[in-house]
Amino acid sequence: MASHVAKRVLVVAGAGNPAGTGAATARLFAKNGYSIALIGREGSKGANTLIEEINQGGGQAKSFAIPSYSHDDMASAWSSIRAHFPKPQYAVRAAVYNVGSGVWKPFLDITPQDVQSCLQANVAGAFSFSRGAILAFKDNDIEEPNGKRGSLIFTGATASTRGNVVTSAFAAAKFGTRALSQSLAKEFGKENIHVAHVIIDGVIALDPNADPEAIKDSRIKPNSIASSYLYLANQDRSAWTWELDRQSFHCIF
Amino acid sequence: MASHVAKRVLVVAGAGNPAGTGAATARLFAKNGYSIALIGREGSKGANTLIEEINQGGGQAKSFAIPSYSHDDMASAWSSIRAHFPKPQYAVRAAVYNVGSGVWKPFLDITPQDVQSCLQANVAGAFSFSRGAILAFKDNDIEEPNGKRGSLIFTGATASTRGNVVTSAFAAAKFGTRALSQSLAKEFGKENIHVAHVIIDGVIALDPNADPEAIKDSRIKPNSIASSYLYLANQDRSAWTWELDRQSFHCIF
Amino acid sequence: MASHVAKRVLVVAGAGNPAGTGAATARLFAKNGYSIALIGREGSKGANTLIEEINQGGGQAKSFAIPSYSHDDMASAWSSIRAHFPKPQYAVRAAVYNVGSGVWKPFLDITPQDVQSCLQANVAGAFSFSRGAILAFKDNDIEEPNGKRGSLIFTGATASTRGNVVTSAFAAAKFGTRALSQSLAKEFGKENIHVAHVIIDGVIALDPNADPEAIKDSRIKPNSIASSYLYLANQDRSAWTWELDRQSFHCIF
Amino acid sequence: MASHVAKRVLVVAGAGNPAGTGAATARLFAKNGYSIALIGREGSKGANTLIEEINQGGGQAKSFAIPSYSHDDMASAWSSIRAHFPKPQYAVRAAVYNVGSGVWKPFLDITPQDVQSCLQANVAGAFSFSRGAILAFKDNDIEEPNGKRGSLIFTGATASTRGNVVTSAFAAAKFGTRALSQSLAKEFGKENIHVAHVIIDGVIALDPNADPEAIKDSRIKPNSIASSYLYLANQDRSAWTWELDRQSFHCIF
Repeated sequence: MASHVAKRVLVVAGAGNPAGTGAATARLFAKNGYSIALIGREGSKGANTLIEEINQGGGQAKSFAIPSYSHDDMASAWSSIRAHFPKPQYAVRAAVYNVGSGVWKPFLDITPQDVQSCLQANVAGAFSFSRGAILAFKDNDIEEPNGKRGSLIFTGATASTRGNVVTSAFAAAKFGTRALSQSLAKEFGKENIHVAHVIIDGVIALDPNADPEAIKDSRIKPNSIASSYLYLANQDRSAWTWELDRQSFHCIF
Repeated sequence: MASHVAKRVLVVAGAGNPAGTGAATARLFAKNGYSIALIGREGSKGANTLIEEINQGGGQAKSFAIPSYSHDDMASAWSSIRAHFPKPQYAVRAAVYNVGSGVWKPFLDITPQDVQSCLQANVAGAFSFSRGAILAFKDNDIEEPNGKRGSLIFTGATASTRGNVVTSAFAAAKFGTRALSQSLAKEFGKENIHVAHVIIDGVIALDPNADPEAIKDSRIKPNSIASSYLYLANQDRSAWTWELDRQSFHCIF
Repeated sequence: MASHVAKRVLVVAGAGNPAGTGAATARLFAKNGYSIALIGREGSKGANTLIEEINQGGGQAKSFAIPSYSHDDMASAWSSIRAHFPKPQYAVRAAVYNVGSGVWKPFLDITPQDVQSCLQANVAGAFSFSRGAILAFKDNDIEEPNGKRGSLIFTGATASTRGNVVTSAFAAAKFGTRALSQSLAKEFGKENIHVAHVIIDGVIALDPNADPEAIKDSRIKPNSIASSYLYLANQDRSAWTWELDRQSFHCIF
Repeated sequence: MASHVAKRVLVVAGAGNPAGTGAATARLFAKNGYSIALIGREGSKGANTLIEEINQGGGQAKSFAIPSYSHDDMASAWSSIRAHFPKPQYAVRAAVYNVGSGVWKPFLDITPQDVQSCLQANVAGAFSFSRGAILAFKDNDIEEPNGKRGSLIFTGATASTRGNVVTSAFAAAKFGTRALSQSLAKEFGKENIHVAHVIIDGVIALDPNADPEAIKDSRIKPNSIASSYLYLANQDRSAWTWELDRQSFHCIF
């Protein structure tokens, strides 16, 4: 069985909010033929809702809940995913790290625990997730026509490139995720693995009950971000994008 | 007649090479329903070839040749385009400034004429072209579902963000184009006009006779760049991309 | 006794190598009238050698050794420093965070412990150190003629702005330190506290036995970096430098 | 006569305002033993005032007025300077390009003449000035202890790295100057020529009658900028600074 007929799998970490970016990404990739694996914290009801929605819509999705974003838990989630979506029937072709919890506090109010928790979720967790993704991609053959083994995408934020008065802990962590993505892009590009970083420079519309008209110029639609991720996953090998920004145009820059 | 059924027009400056980025962009937008207006230097045979090809393929394209990229010539081209594709039947919805001639010389070999010619083609010409595009977009209503009046896209280069030993004149000009695009993005975003800058960080495959296999990892496909431009033009208003890079992954960064 | 005649104190974290940047900084500030407090790991012989050297040369220096760069150990070191150099006789006017241990490994060889240790030394430790410095500075009056309460300086590296193939863990941490410094600069500038980040973009000459002629174009002199720190500490309030680079000119950029 | 005892010469372009950055730089370098050559537009009374002031204070200064910043006029000024300060008695060791006129207008109000004038003053003029400086430096021997042939410094602005709503023409030009400085730094560093770019990120105090207390937190002192330039000129060869910022701390970033 030729691997190009393996079913593509997308792995998303951070899809606990059914109205958020991770969920929108899962839905869009599912519509485009991907099976979906969600990595999230145990007890997240949002992931279950999303799984049901995708499965009832004719897609294939499964949640892999973990107690924490520690390295061991993340590695364990990837093992389970690889076992649940085995080769040669499946191939993990896309992975999205959408975990990004932060704190917004004046510097002197930030606790050592705040710092640790930001670094763990945004940086250490991203290292563990990336390891799972890179190992999965290295097992893949090159897919045509895009010429790639897989695409690893990170959700960035305004704080990924700019520290500010209440974002020292969050920015320190998001700068770190960006550095990781750049290092991986350089190290694994030659192995036909695409690594990208998307700077979401604005406020994401997370409230499903908000009046669309009222927020149309001030909130970034998760569906719109998801379409960037699909665009990146489909980019061909001749020239990949490492970084792109998505900005609310009314408060641009 | 409601303007939302007006036929979309793409204006491209710099499509003289039928194997290049401008031509690939014209072809792709034509396939997606745009009428095409090419602004180029008089005497370019490439533009005529491209026009014929698009028109014979069922598209609609016309060349607007100018003697130079001076302000007056550029303004004149835009007047002719607006007259040839009049409202309300047509609406200019996308404009691509793909002019980017440069010199690669050690600094002490660069002549004052080299500097002037780089600045004229990449910066002054871009100001004139942008004026035509912004004025055309301001005449448009907002198009749904993307919520925009129009999209203005600049082709950047490695030299847009990095000066190097033989690129002082080229980089000085390309940095300037990038500054213009950022200023325009901030000024006109609130008027629902999308301005984007695409950094082509590598060597574009311009030789139609090159062996595709031989260049697959070292040359950026013009079609791939064109697909970025179409992606940008289709981005919805909730969050636009100002800048994205396209990099040859074998010589990434 | 008016506090403007208080003796200035410099606090340096990371001066364990007598041939390194931290030690050169301590020596230069001592020559310029500062009392010196060194924060370092217990068991570092280098710090003791440096302390002796400064004290024998007529300066005043003391080491405050801590078992780790944990928050509690760092906070404890700052308490001891404040007690040893009490107001109004002393005022901590400068603080340099020169801790920057890293790992250089291909991504798949990086362990979770490597990631934690990089983040702890470069980011979490920097948060704790900064807290001590900011609190000390806030206790100071404004010093004339520079118009400041104090200066907090971070030693950055090439990896502070560029991730690369073997620097994913180190760069993730150094990007984080830089974000912290930018956030602090914005938050505390208005309180007349100067925060700066110096990118050491090259290899520092750490071998005291190296032939000066052989390394003159390829190694950055710690004394030269130290002079940047003194320059920054002396900058007046009308315009501070947040960031400057120091580059080996033979491998510039 | 060994050239290391040659008298150092500083060449400044753009010192027409006796209260400005160029004049402050000339004064400070004169106090530090440099002879001063000013390149400025004919008819500038400010330059004459400054020349008198320096000469009466025991320094040595001369103005080289040119009708425009065209390449030929700039080249002519450099010839006159080299003839007036001949080798081996003199050596041009520092050059500062402080020309930076701009326009602040909404994009649609910017004329083609505005664009040309910004590009001419900030970019083309900088190329011509740099040529004169590089050729002069290449004629120098290496000066100890800093190990350099000479230092070329550019005055940048907020608009050097950020385009904004009324700065499209100014930013397009200032980005260009910065690109030139980066290219030159890379090309001539190996020849022991130091090229630096200083981003003045704020409003310079140009009104000599302003109340110092009123402007102390909102205006950058020209003397403070000048001290950065002297610091850069004195930096040793082991590690040069290409870029540093000077920011008003009350409106930092």
